[in-house]
Amino acid sequence: MSLLSSRSQPETAAHAFDPASRAAVYRAIELRRDMRHFAGGHVQPEVLVRLLRAAHWAPSVGFMQPWRWIRITHPVQRQRLHQLVQQERVRTAQALGERGEAFARLKVEGILESAELWAVVLMPERERHVFGRRTLPEMDVASAACAIQNLWLAARAEGLGVGWVSIFDPQQVADLLGCPPGSRPLALLCLGPVYLFYDEPMLQRERWAKRLSLRDVVFENRWEQPSTLPLRDDAPAA
Amino acid sequence: MSLLSSRSQPETAAHAFDPASRAAVYRAIELRRDMRHFAGGHVQPEVLVRLLRAAHWAPSVGFMQPWRWIRITHPVQRQRLHQLVQQERVRTAQALGERGEAFARLKVEGILESAELWAVVLMPERERHVFGRRTLPEMDVASAACAIQNLWLAARAEGLGVGWVSIFDPQQVADLLGCPPGSRPLALLCLGPVYLFYDEPMLQRERWAKRLSLRDVVFENRWEQPSTLPLRDDAPAA
Repeated sequence: MSLLSSRSQPETAAHAFDPASRAAVYRAIELRRDMRHFAGGHVQPEVLVRLLRAAHWAPSVGFMQPWRWIRITHPVQRQRLHQLVQQERVRTAQALGERGEAFARLKVEGILESAELWAVVLMPERERHVFGRRTLPEMDVASAACAIQNLWLAARAEGLGVGWVSIFDPQQVADLLGCPPGSRPLALLCLGPVYLFYDEPMLQRERWAKRLSLRDVVFENRWEQPSTLPLRDDAPAA
Repeated sequence: MSLLSSRSQPETAAHAFDPASRAAVYRAIELRRDMRHFAGGHVQPEVLVRLLRAAHWAPSVGFMQPWRWIRITHPVQRQRLHQLVQQERVRTAQALGERGEAFARLKVEGILESAELWAVVLMPERERHVFGRRTLPEMDVASAACAIQNLWLAARAEGLGVGWVSIFDPQQVADLLGCPPGSRPLALLCLGPVYLFYDEPMLQRERWAKRLSLRDVVFENRWEQPSTLPLRDDAPAA
C-alpha cells in the first residue's frame, strides 16, 4: 500500500491529478492577478475561443448559464465604455469620503491599453429560473463570477492578464451595448498581454488593503468560533 | 524564432505556463463537476488548508475579502442544516409549478454523505466597501463565488468532489450558525471523496437543461450581434 492510499481513500487517489498537474492548478490560482497594466498587442482568436470554452464550462445554478459575452472590437465602443468608467470613477471617489483622494490616485482599469475588452452581461428573464434561486436570487451573479474566474485562471496559464472592472453604471453600459430590459452588465474585462504580473495584489502593494489571515475568515460550527485546522497563511502552491 | 514567439508577443510567451501545466489547468476546468453523490470518508486537514488557501487567494472587489468559511464538524449542526435544505426543497418544488415534479425527483445535495460540510457566509458591514460596488453592490457575491470556484478547481485536482447547495433560507442558516446581522450565507458546500465524477453535468444527464452553444452566448460589440471568432463547442482541454 502506497503512502498516498494509506492516507486517503482509494477513490480520492484514483481521481487526483498527478503531482505536477496538481501543482499547476495551484500555481494558476496563486499567480493570477487583477491586472490594470497591459502591454497592448493582440490575442490569437483560437486562444480567445479556449478562454471562452473554459468560462462556459463553469458551474451555474440549475445549469441556467446566465452569462453572455460581448467582445468589443469597435474602437468607438471602447472609447465610450472608457468614458462611462471615468464618470463612475469620479462618483466613487466622492462617495468614498476621506478615502476618496487615495482612491483617485489608484489605477483602476486598463481599458484603453488592453488587447481585448469584453463585457459580461447577465441574460434577461432570469426570474424564470427558480432552481437554487428562490431564496438566493443572487446565484445568477455567483454563476457568472465562477465563469469569469475560470477564464481568469485559464488566461493566466496562457500568459495573459485579466482585469475585472466594475466601476460603471450598469444601465448606461446596457444602453450602450443594446442589451435588452432585464439583462444586467456585471463586468468589463480587460484581457491581454502584460509586461509583468504584480507579485502581490496591486491594492495591497498600494496599501489600500491587506490580505486577511486565514484565522480571521475560517471558523468552526458557529460564527467566529476558532477552527481547529492547522491554518497557515502560505501561498496556495507552497 | 520559435513558432510560439512568432505568433504571440514575447511577454505572453514568457508568462505562459509550459504546455503540460497549461493543459492541467484546462483539465481541472473541464473535469470539475457539481457533485451530489459522495463516498463518505474524510479529508486530511492539510488538504483542507490547501483548499482554503486556494479560496482565499481569489480576487475580491476593492480587496474586501468578504468570504467567511464555517466548517461544520458537529453532527447535530449538520442534521439541522440538512433539515433546512429539505424544507426549502419542498417550497422550491411548489414554486416550480409544472416542473416541480421533475425537480423533486432530482438529487440536489449530498449533505449527509459528504466527508465535509462547509458554510460560506458573506461578512457583515459590507456596505462600508464602496470601491467597485457603488453601482454594483452584488460584487461581494461575485468575489465569494470566485473564491468558491478556486476551491472547487483545487479540490478536483486533489481528487475531491464539491457540491454547491443554495437551496435554503439564508436567514435560517444565519440563525443556526450564529451569524451576525448583515451577514448572508451564500453556500453550503459538500466536499469529499466521490466514487466517480459525472461525465457530464448531472442536470444535463437528467435532462433538466442542456449546455448552450457558444454561438448563443458570445456576441460582438452589441447584444446578439454574431461573433466573428471561430467558435466551436469543444471541451476546454480539447
